[in-house]
Amino acid sequence: MVTDRIVLALDAHGGDFGPQVTIPAALDVLSIHSNLEILLCGISEDILPVLNKITSEQAPKHCIDRLATIEANHALTPDARPVAALRRGKGSSLWLALEQVANGRAHACVSAGSTAAILALGVKLLGMLPGIERPALMSRVPSASGHTNLLDLGANLHVSAYQLVQFAIMGSVACPLDGLSGAPKVALLNVGHEDSKGDAVVKEAHAMLKELPINYTGFIEGHDIFAGKADVAVCDGFSGNLIIKSGEGLATMIFRHINMAMNRGWFAKAGAFFLRKSLQDTLERFEPSKHNGAPLLGLRGVVVKSHGNADREALGHAIREAVVEAERQVPQLIESMINDFSIEVGL
Amino acid sequence: MVTDRIVLALDAHGGDFGPQVTIPAALDVLSIHSNLEILLCGISEDILPVLNKITSEQAPKHCIDRLATIEANHALTPDARPVAALRRGKGSSLWLALEQVANGRAHACVSAGSTAAILALGVKLLGMLPGIERPALMSRVPSASGHTNLLDLGANLHVSAYQLVQFAIMGSVACPLDGLSGAPKVALLNVGHEDSKGDAVVKEAHAMLKELPINYTGFIEGHDIFAGKADVAVCDGFSGNLIIKSGEGLATMIFRHINMAMNRGWFAKAGAFFLRKSLQDTLERFEPSKHNGAPLLGLRGVVVKSHGNADREALGHAIREAVVEAERQVPQLIESMINDFSIEVGL
Repeated sequence: MVTDRIVLALDAHGGDFGPQVTIPAALDVLSIHSNLEILLCGISEDILPVLNKITSEQAPKHCIDRLATIEANHALTPDARPVAALRRGKGSSLWLALEQVANGRAHACVSAGSTAAILALGVKLLGMLPGIERPALMSRVPSASGHTNLLDLGANLHVSAYQLVQFAIMGSVACPLDGLSGAPKVALLNVGHEDSKGDAVVKEAHAMLKELPINYTGFIEGHDIFAGKADVAVCDGFSGNLIIKSGEGLATMIFRHINMAMNRGWFAKAGAFFLRKSLQDTLERFEPSKHNGAPLLGLRGVVVKSHGNADREALGHAIREAVVEAERQVPQLIESMINDFSIEVGL
Repeated sequence: MVTDRIVLALDAHGGDFGPQVTIPAALDVLSIHSNLEILLCGISEDILPVLNKITSEQAPKHCIDRLATIEANHALTPDARPVAALRRGKGSSLWLALEQVANGRAHACVSAGSTAAILALGVKLLGMLPGIERPALMSRVPSASGHTNLLDLGANLHVSAYQLVQFAIMGSVACPLDGLSGAPKVALLNVGHEDSKGDAVVKEAHAMLKELPINYTGFIEGHDIFAGKADVAVCDGFSGNLIIKSGEGLATMIFRHINMAMNRGWFAKAGAFFLRKSLQDTLERFEPSKHNGAPLLGLRGVVVKSHGNADREALGHAIREAVVEAERQVPQLIESMINDFSIEVGL
């Protein structure tokens, strides 16, 4: 399905705020992308009251016209587990959103629902790309040189060396190209830089990656993620999940303390007044909502997972991320690269 | 060895700067702790030039008098691997420092040398406490409620459920008591809070910890570390190493950006001038050197590992950490708790 028109299926109920956030976010992105259509999958009695309140000033007709609804009969809970999603997911807003991609009616799907449910239903309805064993969640974090794309963030708790290699290839393909010259630098996260460091799995993956025609730069350590030593950093989902969440927690705490410091007495308040404009960029750069939208790579279609607590702006970022992935046809690129590698190096 | 006098063995050559940093740091701590003696283990031709340059103003006689030297015949390299340390470590500054503890001549040992070498020689020369299978590195990170003690930070790449339980017990005992009322809250790091989350190892450890008479509060996620939901957070060394190093990298990058923002134009500089004093506390709170000094728990003696790139002040923190551990007799406390638990719950 190659076309300039992009159709995106949105799970209207995923996330903590449901249609109150998903609909305004959808309209925001529709107002920017004139070639975008959004299929809002949800329960009409929840969707309609929100839609009816939206005035033509808030969303012009040309935006509303590109927003269609697909009736769901229920919504999964935000903490839905895989078994529950598979057993009771049929007809839910998430199921329908994924089904639009599986049936070729949409180019991409976005949900702020339970990661486990998106993963289970994504694999069931879309299936894996040939040569990829497991999907991986990827997210962008700010770094000294721009951004680092980190995967896997929790789709797989533990992985084989071969799966780490697949993640590295997928990350290399899916890595956004903004500002990058040449092939993205791909690295494996480890407890040291030397070949002797790490367990058997990372060592084996390291040896395999050296043989592949991607820009593999070797092992990196935790601090290298933010130092910008790699464009793509690969690890198992257990470690990746802890790294990304602890980083969000740390950044949140630091900024809260800086805010407190800026309000400690009139002297500090005066300083904050002068400084705020200059600090704005820094604060925005580290704001987690700006990096919302983690693609689930390896499926036969674009699926982007949003933070459950995403607000309108943050969900907008996730939707735009999905649009970019759909435009770039990331799943097709991954399939093609895996295919080339099977022939070239017998992967 | 119960005494008010504390003797500490210091590896004069560990770390990137050797005696240039270890000797001034030792004298700094001697000037604060009047009941402390330090055995400086190193090569005299490197130590003496530094000692000879120190004037009586920089270090009064009562400090110098409590600094003795023990002659080493060589120093291990900063990246010494375990095999090399075991084969060629005998007579090195690290070996001698650990030996002082093993022989009962010192209460504690501090080294900024290679973690792998400290670990290998620590196990060889001191041995493990009965009932503890593997040593674990613990470090303190700032949190919303004070500090969280994180272990293991890389002494073990992967662990069994039983070893995670041992780490939890050791962390609970070794957790510094400053400001804590009641038993420290101990938690297991996982990808979710629910009992169903995580792999077989964390689930089994979770079940075992619930039965133990420590203040076990269950699973926590990455962001909970800095939110202060636990006093002690336990995980395998691979994840722990990535969490602590990525956190250091992130904090470093955020503060570098804030510094840049403070120097962007005279308006920002004026703001920074007013604000600097108030921000100082915040910056210091997150300064990694303030948290330098990671105890290696589980050995028959106090061993504290310093960052290799520690400066005089940072190494001073590690030495003071070792003094506190020796005063509290942490290894004896761990041994006693493990012993009680074996009788009580058949651990």
